[in-house]
Amino acid sequence: MRDFSTDHFQLSLNTATVRKQGDLLAIIEACARHQIPAISPWRDQVATVGLEAAVKAVKTHGLKLSGYCRGGMFPADASKRQEARDDNRRAVDAARAFDAACLVLVVGGLPHYARPGSAVSHDLGAARRQVEDGIGELLEYARGAGMPLAIEPLHPMYAADRACVNTLEQALDICDRLDPARTGALGVAADVYHIWWDPNLYRDIKRAGRERLLAFHVCDWLVPTRDLLNDRGMMGDGVIEISKIRAAVEAEGFAGFSEVEIFSELDWWKRPMDEVLRTCIERHKSVV
Amino acid sequence: MRDFSTDHFQLSLNTATVRKQGDLLAIIEACARHQIPAISPWRDQVATVGLEAAVKAVKTHGLKLSGYCRGGMFPADASKRQEARDDNRRAVDAARAFDAACLVLVVGGLPHYARPGSAVSHDLGAARRQVEDGIGELLEYARGAGMPLAIEPLHPMYAADRACVNTLEQALDICDRLDPARTGALGVAADVYHIWWDPNLYRDIKRAGRERLLAFHVCDWLVPTRDLLNDRGMMGDGVIEISKIRAAVEAEGFAGFSEVEIFSELDWWKRPMDEVLRTCIERHKSVV
Repeated sequence: MRDFSTDHFQLSLNTATVRKQGDLLAIIEACARHQIPAISPWRDQVATVGLEAAVKAVKTHGLKLSGYCRGGMFPADASKRQEARDDNRRAVDAARAFDAACLVLVVGGLPHYARPGSAVSHDLGAARRQVEDGIGELLEYARGAGMPLAIEPLHPMYAADRACVNTLEQALDICDRLDPARTGALGVAADVYHIWWDPNLYRDIKRAGRERLLAFHVCDWLVPTRDLLNDRGMMGDGVIEISKIRAAVEAEGFAGFSEVEIFSELDWWKRPMDEVLRTCIERHKSVV
Repeated sequence: MRDFSTDHFQLSLNTATVRKQGDLLAIIEACARHQIPAISPWRDQVATVGLEAAVKAVKTHGLKLSGYCRGGMFPADASKRQEARDDNRRAVDAARAFDAACLVLVVGGLPHYARPGSAVSHDLGAARRQVEDGIGELLEYARGAGMPLAIEPLHPMYAADRACVNTLEQALDICDRLDPARTGALGVAADVYHIWWDPNLYRDIKRAGRERLLAFHVCDWLVPTRDLLNDRGMMGDGVIEISKIRAAVEAEGFAGFSEVEIFSELDWWKRPMDEVLRTCIERHKSVV
C-alpha cells in the first residue's frame, strides 16, 4: 500500500466537490495553487466554460484527469435511444480530448428518470438489460477512441433514479460478458461511498483485479445522512474504513489516483474553495 | 399466487404505520373495525400500554401476529453485551406471550449505534461477526420457547446505524451456518423496501424457500426519497414491483400475511388512522 502521509501526489479532485464555489477554470487554478496534480471534471462544468478552454486550462497547468464524469443514463424508450447513443459518444470524444484515464459511467435507473420524456416503466430487470446493451454498443466506439469505460456501481438507494448497477459483483458480471478477455477497455470505478457496506466487497475487489480497477473514489458516509444525494462526508468524518478499502484495491495492483468526490449541500459546498482543498489534502494524508 | 383483489384476509398491519395517530390499544380497535386480521406491533408501543393489556386486546379481538418487532441490535462492546442478551430474551418471551409467527430481528449496525454507550468502532466485519454470534446464542433460547427468529436484511443505507445484514444472501448465509437443517427456527423477513433493488433478489428468494421465508413486508420506494428513515411510500406510490416480488415469495410456498409497514413522517403519519387503514386495504387489493 502506498504511503500517502507525506505528500498528495496521488490526490485527484473530482470537481463536483467545489462546484458551488467557482467555475471549472477557477477550480483548475485552485488545484494548481494547491499542487493537486489531477482532477475529474463533470460535463456540465466543462460545458459552462467550453470544452476548448477547459482542455487548454488542464494542459497549461499540467493536470491529469483521473476520469471524466460522465457517460451513461442508458435506459430509454425508443424515442430517446438515439439521444442516449449520441450523448454517450460525445462523452467519449470529450474524455479523449482531455486524455482522461477513463470515462465514468453512471448507468441510469428506470428509463423515465434516466432519459426524461421516456415512458414510465418500473421494470428494473428491463432497465438493467438496456444498460448492458448500451454499454456493449458504446464499448465498440470507445475502443476505437482508446478510451476505457469505467462502470460505477452506485449505492442501492439510487437504483430507481440514477443507476441500476448497484454492486461491484453486478458491474463485474457485465464486464465479464462484454469484455471476457479483460483487455482494459472496460472496468469499474470503485467509490467507497457506494460500496463500503457490501458484504462481498473484498471478494469482489479481488475479482476485479488490476485490469478492471480503473478508478478509486473517496469520501465518507455520515451518520446520520440527512439527504440521499448531497450529504456526503469529508474523509474521516464518517464510518467508512477508507484505508482498508484502499489497501485492498492497491493489493490488486491499482496505482491510479485517489479521487475525492464530495457532494455536500449542507457543509462543504458552503465553505471557501481553498479551505475545502486544504482539508481534502490534509485528510488524504491522514485518513485515506 | 393468491388473489388479493376481493378481500383483505391476508393483510397484516405493522403498527408503526399509524404510530403517531394513537396508542396500541387504539390501533388494535381500529384494525378490528376495519376487519384487518393481523398486526405486527413494536415493543415500545407494547411497553406504553403494558404487555398484559396488549396481549389481552389482541386476544379479545381475535387478531393474529404476523411478527413481533423487534429483537436484535447485537453489536455491543463488553459493557453492553449482557444488556443485549437479556433484552433479546425478553423480546422472545413477549413474542411468545402474543403467540407471534416470528420475532423479527433488526440486527444492529456498528456497536455504538446498536447499543449506545459501547465504544466507537468502524469495524463493520467485526460487527457482522457479533451479529452472527448473537443470533446463534439467541437461537438456542428461542428454540426452547418455540419462537422462530426472522432476520430482516435492511437496505444498505442503514448498514452503519441500524443493521449490518443488508442482503438476503447475507441473511441466508447466516441461516445456513446456524440452522443447516432448515428446521424453521431461523429464517428471514423479506421486506420489499429493503430488497427490491437487489440484482440477486429472485435467485435468493428461491434459495430461501418455504422454510426460510417467515415474513413478507410491503410498502413502496418513493422517488425522490426525502428522508432515509421515515419517507416510505404507500404501496403503488413508488417504483417497487411489489406483486412480482410477492409472486416469487408465494411460488416458494409462503402462505403468511402481507404486512404493511410504512414509516412516513411527511405524509401517512399526518393522516387520520381510519384513512390510512382504508388506503392500506385498498392498495392491498389493487397493487400488492
